[in-house]
Amino acid sequence: MTKPYHVVGIGNAMVDILAHAEDAFLDAHGVQKGIMQLIDMERAVHLYGQIGPAQEISGGSAANTIAGIAHLGGRTAYVGKVKDDQLGAIFAHDLRAQGADYDTPMAPGDTAGETGRCIVLVTPDGERSMNTYLGVTEHLSPADIDDRQVAGAEWIYLEGYRFDGPESHEAFAKAIGAAKAAGGRVSLTLSDPFCVERHRDAFRRMIAADVDLLFANRAEILSMYETDDFHEALSRAAAEVDIVACTESEHGAHVLAEGQHWHVPAIPTQVVDATGAGDLFAGAFLWGLTHGRDLETCGRMGCVAASEVISHIGARAEADLGVLFRSHGLT
Amino acid sequence: MTKPYHVVGIGNAMVDILAHAEDAFLDAHGVQKGIMQLIDMERAVHLYGQIGPAQEISGGSAANTIAGIAHLGGRTAYVGKVKDDQLGAIFAHDLRAQGADYDTPMAPGDTAGETGRCIVLVTPDGERSMNTYLGVTEHLSPADIDDRQVAGAEWIYLEGYRFDGPESHEAFAKAIGAAKAAGGRVSLTLSDPFCVERHRDAFRRMIAADVDLLFANRAEILSMYETDDFHEALSRAAAEVDIVACTESEHGAHVLAEGQHWHVPAIPTQVVDATGAGDLFAGAFLWGLTHGRDLETCGRMGCVAASEVISHIGARAEADLGVLFRSHGLT
Repeated sequence: MTKPYHVVGIGNAMVDILAHAEDAFLDAHGVQKGIMQLIDMERAVHLYGQIGPAQEISGGSAANTIAGIAHLGGRTAYVGKVKDDQLGAIFAHDLRAQGADYDTPMAPGDTAGETGRCIVLVTPDGERSMNTYLGVTEHLSPADIDDRQVAGAEWIYLEGYRFDGPESHEAFAKAIGAAKAAGGRVSLTLSDPFCVERHRDAFRRMIAADVDLLFANRAEILSMYETDDFHEALSRAAAEVDIVACTESEHGAHVLAEGQHWHVPAIPTQVVDATGAGDLFAGAFLWGLTHGRDLETCGRMGCVAASEVISHIGARAEADLGVLFRSHGLT
Repeated sequence: MTKPYHVVGIGNAMVDILAHAEDAFLDAHGVQKGIMQLIDMERAVHLYGQIGPAQEISGGSAANTIAGIAHLGGRTAYVGKVKDDQLGAIFAHDLRAQGADYDTPMAPGDTAGETGRCIVLVTPDGERSMNTYLGVTEHLSPADIDDRQVAGAEWIYLEGYRFDGPESHEAFAKAIGAAKAAGGRVSLTLSDPFCVERHRDAFRRMIAADVDLLFANRAEILSMYETDDFHEALSRAAAEVDIVACTESEHGAHVLAEGQHWHVPAIPTQVVDATGAGDLFAGAFLWGLTHGRDLETCGRMGCVAASEVISHIGARAEADLGVLFRSHGLT
């Protein structure tokens, strides 16, 4: 029986505030380069007051992935919390306008905090340094997980960042239970090396018990298995889950499954803004996987989508990814 | 004596919501192509629900001009009203981060309406069709004009769009009075042919009585003088004001002053989004004028700045305009 959704994603809902910054600015303002750091509202207001003119584009890691799958025509839904404020309306609009279902109840206007946002500082090398005020997205609770929706997914996609927050583990457990009970499968992205640092044990338990497909990048998987040996980390992951899809920036991506290891090339491009590279890799990979493509093709599609999103500001695809796939001989 | 400001601009403060749309979408949703149309909140919510994923970039015609002058290092201030909401904070941040002063009191959070926004639909030809919900910017009043600030300007820059709204004429009159009393000069942009249609008599009175420098494009100046003869319209304007700077899209711009007529070429570029072309033309022109450049050079700088802003999404400069000027031999 066809399930209503190819993929349902769960993550931190937020709008990106993207601005260019020099490396010296990061140093002067204590921003760690290349990672996601959590900040409170006070710090967000202070940092925002220091950065240059910005532009606002919906973000959120799993939301970017879901938007990518929807962009490709996949049937998707997203679960993540915004507030009933202007940024919340922007987030909800952009996801629905892309064709994804998005039904998580908004936190009412009188809730403490605001819709989450990420101040993304893009340095001249195209690297992005993320400063995340979680706001109401931190409080996604099991009550926000609609069992029936999650059960309707061939795959659920869990965002590692979402391990931050008081009821996050319970919410994930509920989603995993509902998905698996209905024959669905579970994918997880490790999100960020420091996120792995904060939640390594919880990640490990989830990977061992429930995860079928693990997304990571090189730094994250090394942190996960506390090793400097990339191939050891890949092998250990491959021993735990059915499919490992691990990106390695300009060196492409590795897909490990069924005892095989495919190394697919990156698509050379001018890196304008690395924001969303991993998210769009995962989106294209999951689209391929749920549309009968072999795993190597899924990995190649992931690299094509990642190259598109890093060629411009913002973490949502601008060019037609389906057209790009065909231009790279991927059908 | 050096004045504190090269230019103080007064206009409608708003954030642009930019999305791509096909021409058929405009037809299906009753959007008139290439112009600015005023819409109410109900229509804004409806239209927003129909458009694709968007991105938010601060806009507002005169604000774009002031941001351009500030970007070039000019001393500027902007007057225009936002509400104390998230879009208002974005607008204020982007202007101040560019180096402009912006002190207009925000409408308090309990004010009816919201910060103004413009749903900008960009068709494949790069043309923009603007759907403007004015919100609180409509209610800029004489009390929002700080006499001292306006008196500190070498030039004030008045946005034609700002003729819409109950107290707009009084606010402009106050600003003109304060500027002129302190030896300042007055520039005005006609903004839009349909805006001219709505306010032709008021524009004419202001031009005859107070305007020293008139910005317009071809369609606007034809509408202003109710003629089909472009050169007649230019001549009539030149008879009324000291300087006329009139853009003509890919045909460049015309500058008329002191009995002379300079026709400066457009800079050929791929038009991605025409939003802000006239605004940045005016910004670069005013920067040149207040920095001792001759009028032909001012016009050339305007065309260079316009070509930059139409080469990407959004109405604020992304590339370094000063560097671009030099690359075109303009110093």
